[in-house]
Amino acid sequence: MSDYSVYELLNRKRRGAPLEPREIEFFIDGYTRGTIPDYQMSALLMAIAINGMTGTEMATLTQAMLRSGEQWHLRDSYDFIADKHSTGGVGDKVSLVLSPWVAACGIKIGMLSGRGLGHTGGTLDKLEAIPGFNARLSREEFERCVNDVFCVISTSTEGIAPADKKIYALRDVTGTVESLPLITASIMSKKLAMGASALILDVKTGSGAFMRKYQDSKALAESLIAAAAGSGTKVEALITDMDRPLGIAAGNANEIIETIEVLKGNGPADVEDVTRDQGIRILVMSGRYDEASARTALDEALKSGRALEQARKWIAAQGGDASVVDDYSLLAQPRETIEVKAPQSGVISAIDTYQAGMFTVDLGAGRKKADDQIDYAAGVMFDRRTGDEVKAGDVIARIQLGKKGRDAEELRAKFLAFVEFGEEPAARPLVHEHLR
Amino acid sequence: MSDYSVYELLNRKRRGAPLEPREIEFFIDGYTRGTIPDYQMSALLMAIAINGMTGTEMATLTQAMLRSGEQWHLRDSYDFIADKHSTGGVGDKVSLVLSPWVAACGIKIGMLSGRGLGHTGGTLDKLEAIPGFNARLSREEFERCVNDVFCVISTSTEGIAPADKKIYALRDVTGTVESLPLITASIMSKKLAMGASALILDVKTGSGAFMRKYQDSKALAESLIAAAAGSGTKVEALITDMDRPLGIAAGNANEIIETIEVLKGNGPADVEDVTRDQGIRILVMSGRYDEASARTALDEALKSGRALEQARKWIAAQGGDASVVDDYSLLAQPRETIEVKAPQSGVISAIDTYQAGMFTVDLGAGRKKADDQIDYAAGVMFDRRTGDEVKAGDVIARIQLGKKGRDAEELRAKFLAFVEFGEEPAARPLVHEHLR
Repeated sequence: MSDYSVYELLNRKRRGAPLEPREIEFFIDGYTRGTIPDYQMSALLMAIAINGMTGTEMATLTQAMLRSGEQWHLRDSYDFIADKHSTGGVGDKVSLVLSPWVAACGIKIGMLSGRGLGHTGGTLDKLEAIPGFNARLSREEFERCVNDVFCVISTSTEGIAPADKKIYALRDVTGTVESLPLITASIMSKKLAMGASALILDVKTGSGAFMRKYQDSKALAESLIAAAAGSGTKVEALITDMDRPLGIAAGNANEIIETIEVLKGNGPADVEDVTRDQGIRILVMSGRYDEASARTALDEALKSGRALEQARKWIAAQGGDASVVDDYSLLAQPRETIEVKAPQSGVISAIDTYQAGMFTVDLGAGRKKADDQIDYAAGVMFDRRTGDEVKAGDVIARIQLGKKGRDAEELRAKFLAFVEFGEEPAARPLVHEHLR
Repeated sequence: MSDYSVYELLNRKRRGAPLEPREIEFFIDGYTRGTIPDYQMSALLMAIAINGMTGTEMATLTQAMLRSGEQWHLRDSYDFIADKHSTGGVGDKVSLVLSPWVAACGIKIGMLSGRGLGHTGGTLDKLEAIPGFNARLSREEFERCVNDVFCVISTSTEGIAPADKKIYALRDVTGTVESLPLITASIMSKKLAMGASALILDVKTGSGAFMRKYQDSKALAESLIAAAAGSGTKVEALITDMDRPLGIAAGNANEIIETIEVLKGNGPADVEDVTRDQGIRILVMSGRYDEASARTALDEALKSGRALEQARKWIAAQGGDASVVDDYSLLAQPRETIEVKAPQSGVISAIDTYQAGMFTVDLGAGRKKADDQIDYAAGVMFDRRTGDEVKAGDVIARIQLGKKGRDAEELRAKFLAFVEFGEEPAARPLVHEHLR
């Protein structure tokens, strides 16, 4: 195809007509190789963001992006290996609990994960709160870890979906981040490039999710599943609640502690329950369990301490100090903890979870810019949660300061600004729906 | 405003929300100065092309683009000076006939005109077929010509609407040429930067126009008028027919001959009539004529030979050889003329005028690429026209070859491919509608 074709393709997409698979491949290939310039790609991205894509276009876009780099085909190297992806939320430590728990049931699981940006934390940032933990593995190290301890979480390597990296940077400066087909292709190109046997998607919904509205979350889940059609990776999705922070801890070191507490059987219940449901799906997708035996195996792995033992092995396998499991003082410690007390008696009717996430980021637990440093000790403990009845003066939260001192009264006021007191809120399920 | 604003503006326009005037000015100003890169402008152009613009947005965009460069405010230098713009067609020599004709009635008229691209010819290309004619005037030369001979046609200078030049080049490679607000802002920013007292718009409709459908032509006319609101330039539009080539000649040298023949009172009638209607509008807008006296004045200027005399003076004032008016052999001559004969008896029911334009361009009379050289002698004479009854073997057209020899049989076959014989076509008015 010639230069003229680029113009024609853009013209067609502008008018809302779908592109042919070979045309999408031509565009992605040309952009990755640098023969199609940014200004033509950004015009295409805007046209896609406004006019959408058909299922076929989206699947082709995903395939073209994944083929821009390495393909690991991990499902060919193992009888079964699972992958998991979350769309992100506040206090979301599910991947950390899930990995050793599933591994303790004899199921291999590996993830190429991301760092926090925006109001959500990042799985890799949390893991790096563990002294010595190495989250930048080569493909060889990744596979060795799977072989040795059945679980691994690492950052995506340079070789995986380079088209996605280039396109994502352009979307970020052209107002085309919010687009279902572009989000889908970005997520799935990386997942399908790794090529696990099965992938469980944790699609969040509610005030702390990227997709706040249920219908948008469901549309994303369906879109992600559709984009994997014919790829060889079995994909299922759970739509789970992110209208409230998950668990009590939001931050990095404090989420590692909460993860270990869940693996010790000490809850919190919501983290344990939403992780178990994802574990069940993975075990069932492996073909070695049905739903009942999967639940029994997971409960047994937790009660016996084998899941906790697996966490020790995993941390050590990625270079981390496993004694952290027994000694939380090895983690970065808050310089000061500020108690937030209820200003009135009543029921906590809502915590705006997006605001809660931004508050946590502002403490240093997340990034405002891509090159910001994480302050591992900083975070929030949501001691009293949405739906709880409190008395005036009860401690409802503890703000953990990391390296920087902050004005306590100002932080309390900021915190209380996103907490509402009033009517008992309507109950929301932890897991809204299971799609496959 | 900061970088963040660009992202927010793009986000907003993507969602279909209108931009504020100061935001549009910020964007155009930043792009012209080079602080906003091509890839952000192309994303904005695509969002505008798909989601449209409100009247206020479009007027602001036009104003921002015209303010990117010089503003001539010609209406402040003269009691009255007219401007004229055509959306372009095949055989459209109206500007060439109109200028000396109006000037012969004591009305000043000046145009910054364009060159041919696509299937249409360009007024400047046609003028440059006259030996010595200088269509690249400075502002001083332009005004001297108005003062001396009351009429002038020149290419737009570098200083007029530089934002339009930069944006047009980007639209050309990003599939965003067909967009009502972008077309409007491009045309009107240049017209309003010159700043005549009055502007007559000749908006073409039919198979040889950029807007083939009547409703699209009307929407463009209305949009162009709306964009001039409050500018100080009075704007009216005539929607005129371009479902058939205008006149008999399409090319460059042959259109100069036809122009002079019209000024000598020898027709063709369609060229004379559509030009007279535009002349009447200009004379009326000057405030010195009503419709009846305008018609009388124009008819008298033609009959008396003053319009032709004015053409001589004008050609000489722009450096051209005015004796061309009496001696057409001074123009480039066809190396060969190929007659096309009717393959059957019957009525010519249609000539696809877009195809006729592309055929003429292919002979060398127009440009396929911006830097192509014009072959002034090349062109087509449409001796028999849509609606004419012909006998098999009648000469219906003469193809004039310029510098390059061509295969006569192949050209005849190509020509006949866009001519239809059949039912007598429905009559179409020359001037469909007058808008102001």
